[in-house]
Amino acid sequence: MSRQELINQIKQKKSFLCVGLDTDIEKIPSFLLSYPDPIFEFNKRIIDATKDLCVAYKPNSAFYECRGVKGLQSLIATWEYLPKDCISIIDAKRGDIGNTSDKYAQAFLDEASSGMSFDAITVTPYMGNDSITPYLKYEGKWIIILALTSSVGSKDFQYLPTDDGHLYETVIKKANTWAGADRLMYVVGATKSTEFAEIRKHAPDNFLLVPGVGAQGGSLQDVCQYGITKDCGLLVNSSRGIIYASNGEDFADAARAEALAIQQQMEVELKKIGVI
Amino acid sequence: MSRQELINQIKQKKSFLCVGLDTDIEKIPSFLLSYPDPIFEFNKRIIDATKDLCVAYKPNSAFYECRGVKGLQSLIATWEYLPKDCISIIDAKRGDIGNTSDKYAQAFLDEASSGMSFDAITVTPYMGNDSITPYLKYEGKWIIILALTSSVGSKDFQYLPTDDGHLYETVIKKANTWAGADRLMYVVGATKSTEFAEIRKHAPDNFLLVPGVGAQGGSLQDVCQYGITKDCGLLVNSSRGIIYASNGEDFADAARAEALAIQQQMEVELKKIGVI
Repeated sequence: MSRQELINQIKQKKSFLCVGLDTDIEKIPSFLLSYPDPIFEFNKRIIDATKDLCVAYKPNSAFYECRGVKGLQSLIATWEYLPKDCISIIDAKRGDIGNTSDKYAQAFLDEASSGMSFDAITVTPYMGNDSITPYLKYEGKWIIILALTSSVGSKDFQYLPTDDGHLYETVIKKANTWAGADRLMYVVGATKSTEFAEIRKHAPDNFLLVPGVGAQGGSLQDVCQYGITKDCGLLVNSSRGIIYASNGEDFADAARAEALAIQQQMEVELKKIGVI
Repeated sequence: MSRQELINQIKQKKSFLCVGLDTDIEKIPSFLLSYPDPIFEFNKRIIDATKDLCVAYKPNSAFYECRGVKGLQSLIATWEYLPKDCISIIDAKRGDIGNTSDKYAQAFLDEASSGMSFDAITVTPYMGNDSITPYLKYEGKWIIILALTSSVGSKDFQYLPTDDGHLYETVIKKANTWAGADRLMYVVGATKSTEFAEIRKHAPDNFLLVPGVGAQGGSLQDVCQYGITKDCGLLVNSSRGIIYASNGEDFADAARAEALAIQQQMEVELKKIGVI
């Protein structure tokens, strides 16, 4: 999905919501356990209930990998089911030397190789350009680089001062030399809304993937105040807050209600800045 | 495998060789393609040919993930086949927030969950303690943290000066506060042998996993000069140099010959320092 197509979807749906599919067998409603693939069955119903309200889905690879072969089968089935008008993001946070990153790219961006071809993949920057450039060979695919995350551990290294700002700023500035805002997004945690203004200086046009709204405590309004652009420039993710809104038979309706509430707030923010 | 068991294996086998199973369907001998699982068949023969000469095997997860479900099946079969007197390392370079790292730990350290339980996993430090502490819950398992890698991209961030040394030094110093040398190893690329002395100041007792000998250009003698300790303290990995020594029917014999040549050099180094 191109940048312009993504912007068009945001305008059309009046939403920049990304639904995180961190689907945990221990948290889904128990009646689903009788289905052949409970994880996929859960995801399918969540997708059906929310697809007109969001522009992105983001399965978190770990939640599938932890179940071995059957987990991978659920992930592939989920990827196949994702609606084509939503950008599909695999949250994999991979990062390795060039010849290994080539293989990770095949794993997530090359259907002929692995059975999956997501529109975007999250990657971790520690190993430098090796971790990123192999994915750029896949035209039309997005690379989403971890910059500033929403967890407590972000304080350990991401805020370290370097000659060129904090480490997360150096990451953004360096990565900007590898590709433009049509291929690169950055992960910026919502709990750091005051840092958004700083980040926008270095990445004025890039889309930012923003986890941490909801369960992790971030505020949508704060994120928009500092992070939104004339093209929107944000994909705000909510995982647990939406998909586990209920664990009864009404879970999909409850997920829809949560997604709708967020979409309505997003519509207000998009109007404020004149995107719609 | 405990630290003492690992040291005992090193003394017994007179080797600190790790064989990297970066097994690529495009590089294995073509006659193997007629087997039901060519990747596993290749690994099995490599293992049979080298297991008395090495103390560790390290499958690189990307090379299996890129083949989807059948790749994961090959990885699980390989894990099952690994000899119990060798430390089994999954080279996965994962790193995420706590609740996601819990799932990655299940994926690679918890057989009941995923079908695999490696002795050790490589992780990337960018997200801080979240990326590491969840794995510590698995008693007796090792966490191997990326510090200084052997690729060109290492220059982008790992060498950044911080208030507390280069970023890779800060990573080691911080991670040392989370666990001791009985649980943590560090990845240090062999192409950086002069930095080993500096790293040994911060990590005098930790085992270092050293890729980059062979195909990537590092020298075993240099690594030992600066990195070896009285307990050895090194696992030196070779992947391509061993497993692709030949791509004919003699590939396993050729791999053995390469592994033997390295083991013999290692025996010399172990004697020099008095480990054996």
